[in-house]
Amino acid sequence: MKAYSVKELLEGNLLLQEVTVNGWVKTFRSNRFIALNDGSTLANIQCVVDFENFDQETLRQINTGAALKVSGTLTESQGRGQSFEIQVEEIFVHGGADPEAYPIQPKKHSLEFLREKAHLRVRTNTFAAIMRVRSALSFAIHQYFRQNGFYYFHAPIITGSDAEGAGEMFRVTTLSDKNPKLNDQGNVDYKEDFFGKETNLTVSGQLEAEAYAMALGKVYTFGPTFRAENSNTSRHLAEFWMIEPEMAFYDLDANMDLAEDFIKNVIGYVLENCADDLQFLEKRLLDEEKTKPQAERSEMALIEKLKFVTENGFKRVSYTEAIDILRNSKPNKKKKFQYAIDEWGADLQSEHERYLVEKHFKCPVILFDYPAKIKAFYMRLNEDGKTVRAMDILFPGIGEIVGGSQREERLDVLKDKMADLNIPEEELWWYLDLRKFGSAVHSGFGLGFERLVLFTTGMGNIRDVIPFPRTPQNAEF
Amino acid sequence: MKAYSVKELLEGNLLLQEVTVNGWVKTFRSNRFIALNDGSTLANIQCVVDFENFDQETLRQINTGAALKVSGTLTESQGRGQSFEIQVEEIFVHGGADPEAYPIQPKKHSLEFLREKAHLRVRTNTFAAIMRVRSALSFAIHQYFRQNGFYYFHAPIITGSDAEGAGEMFRVTTLSDKNPKLNDQGNVDYKEDFFGKETNLTVSGQLEAEAYAMALGKVYTFGPTFRAENSNTSRHLAEFWMIEPEMAFYDLDANMDLAEDFIKNVIGYVLENCADDLQFLEKRLLDEEKTKPQAERSEMALIEKLKFVTENGFKRVSYTEAIDILRNSKPNKKKKFQYAIDEWGADLQSEHERYLVEKHFKCPVILFDYPAKIKAFYMRLNEDGKTVRAMDILFPGIGEIVGGSQREERLDVLKDKMADLNIPEEELWWYLDLRKFGSAVHSGFGLGFERLVLFTTGMGNIRDVIPFPRTPQNAEF
Repeated sequence: MKAYSVKELLEGNLLLQEVTVNGWVKTFRSNRFIALNDGSTLANIQCVVDFENFDQETLRQINTGAALKVSGTLTESQGRGQSFEIQVEEIFVHGGADPEAYPIQPKKHSLEFLREKAHLRVRTNTFAAIMRVRSALSFAIHQYFRQNGFYYFHAPIITGSDAEGAGEMFRVTTLSDKNPKLNDQGNVDYKEDFFGKETNLTVSGQLEAEAYAMALGKVYTFGPTFRAENSNTSRHLAEFWMIEPEMAFYDLDANMDLAEDFIKNVIGYVLENCADDLQFLEKRLLDEEKTKPQAERSEMALIEKLKFVTENGFKRVSYTEAIDILRNSKPNKKKKFQYAIDEWGADLQSEHERYLVEKHFKCPVILFDYPAKIKAFYMRLNEDGKTVRAMDILFPGIGEIVGGSQREERLDVLKDKMADLNIPEEELWWYLDLRKFGSAVHSGFGLGFERLVLFTTGMGNIRDVIPFPRTPQNAEF
Repeated sequence: MKAYSVKELLEGNLLLQEVTVNGWVKTFRSNRFIALNDGSTLANIQCVVDFENFDQETLRQINTGAALKVSGTLTESQGRGQSFEIQVEEIFVHGGADPEAYPIQPKKHSLEFLREKAHLRVRTNTFAAIMRVRSALSFAIHQYFRQNGFYYFHAPIITGSDAEGAGEMFRVTTLSDKNPKLNDQGNVDYKEDFFGKETNLTVSGQLEAEAYAMALGKVYTFGPTFRAENSNTSRHLAEFWMIEPEMAFYDLDANMDLAEDFIKNVIGYVLENCADDLQFLEKRLLDEEKTKPQAERSEMALIEKLKFVTENGFKRVSYTEAIDILRNSKPNKKKKFQYAIDEWGADLQSEHERYLVEKHFKCPVILFDYPAKIKAFYMRLNEDGKTVRAMDILFPGIGEIVGGSQREERLDVLKDKMADLNIPEEELWWYLDLRKFGSAVHSGFGLGFERLVLFTTGMGNIRDVIPFPRTPQNAEF
């Protein structure tokens, strides 16, 4: 007999039919009510067992975590909290779960405890909900770009250069770990390595995406990127997924328009398609925040916050305006900022971004036209000669969720900038080619996927929104 | 004024309107006809210039590869081969392309030449078509799984173990390349490395996907995987993308059903959505094959071949049957195979797979129930004690495109197998946990994405279907 998913059973089209379902026991109450879940949806299907019809051995195995195949008639439920249930006729135990040994018991586990059990934590309601939302967001991203004329582009993961200079990189090698062959200069002879040169894991697919945008028009990447930074914070991962759209003929305004529309659209998709998971996560967050002092609790509940983002314009503020606001702000005057804002040109710290977003504007903010000195070499220089067409999107509780810019399309300006920063032209000959042949205004941005999942699920630690997090000293599983 | 894409202009809803379009010059004929392309579609828009209205300096810059903004009235075209054209009123040159220096001129370039220019080759019709098909296939994959109740799961890229033993791996490290600290045993002290242990790039996300399937039911990965094999062939990459679905409660038959339906569906999507690109690629292949002797040409044209796959059942053949067929085949009797098939238990080589698919059955073939000895440890042992519930899908011209199996769900059998192969239980404690707690029948497969793109586009070398290929001695760009 065809087996149905719990989701299908709860849709209501199978009433009074004989059905079969596979799943895992969430709870077994009174030797009579099995709550069975198969991951297809948050809700369980209640399976009603007449224990007199089943042998003790079978009943003994029906513990939390056991995998069962259950057959019976789907009926309307008399119980609270569910509309349908199965009057069980047959039970097959695929595999038991010894209650003494199985760590995921029906009680509250700390998120820290569950991180040690990353292979099992997705069996909890919380992590199943997070991962379903994560999956829905991924799909929404692909769908958005496809519907808007973008092509998905796979940037290389192993790269030959640290061109972006975005921080520490992981080396990728097949050389002997202990005694690599040295060259005449006494350095490691990378000619002997797999790729014949030193290679690293990518920190960004942007530069390669630019090459593709200058042919296909609008492209995006969605792939893993890596930072070997020794940051043990709730917002950093050594391995994370990033989305990087890149568009020919887009200036910074068009870039900001796209980024805002994109974020609203994908969050809107989740609001429409993950209502039950979001409700569950909203309740989880409320429960978690009950333990916090009033001042630290969120001003909005999760779903209200997501709707706020989709329904309101992001505030666009130039860096210069932002500096004025910060300089004159109460925390700056009262010296409450760790880094005081004295003058134009200062790099904004997390505390400043949070002040702007959470205290001053109380909405997502797009900051643009940053000082050239604090931004990357490829950003387009403004006519003032001191700012670049960069933009960052700042989100409440998250900080920077998007970083982007219009790219420098003028060969001479780009070369000057690279020379200033000692980036050798030979390293990026192909990137310069894009400015030699058919160059044009173009723009793009990067969005850290896990930060978006963090925001959308209301979770507090980035380790909890990716299946198997990689952080300093941790590459388990 | 809003700029339209070439694709939008060619849809025919803007006739007699003033339009603006950005793109790159493909050709400029008779100082009058600009063929402009922006990557949105294979076709160009013809822009008709009255050269008397434009200064010489502008006209001089209209060379192949130059980026232009063109405005004018969209009219019906009198010329052959296009339905619409722009009567040009304004031209803005974003960036020129010196014909002496720009390598992508309107003439035939060899695929080998273009591989050296991977940042520019996507500006050719061939590579733009391939990459649009690649993007469409990617979307079709995500859409298929989403519509069929699967959750997208991101497997970790950096892993702590070579559990699958699937070949050479790339080491990922931040240790000093020349003088890493050694431990008391005189070995490299990986406690000092970023993750506190030796780490590698993943060869497969399957084992982690199993953990997720045993909670969410049906999941799939779609991410990069790596093999540090020194194979310089037209079918191997060091970095490639793989799709790995994993389903709880699926046996091998359900697994084969899914794999076949999946492949047919995604190829069907491309047939529906990429008709012009496929026609172009079909013609390219025909031209290429004209230089080959009749016997080496494809029996079907590209689109016919794709339709054949979507419209016909894949032939399912047990390994034992396949060995019988091969043993009694002409090439085996005439000793034409490099590796003669003498007895049951032999591993099939590419020449045998091709014989089965291309000569004997002349259709995609699913081989199943392989000898346990030639397959991985995690495949489910059959009751005969000598075969496992493995399956490979073989495609004409490609060979193995899918490899999958029902997974061993019995803890004791799995442990015995691991002991036989000297795989330490401590390495895979978490994988064994999946058999301790709520174990059940489950299955999955892996599909090499680039091989699917190869098949779908009719290209002959895997380096030509990924934007920036990584192969031994090559990690440019």
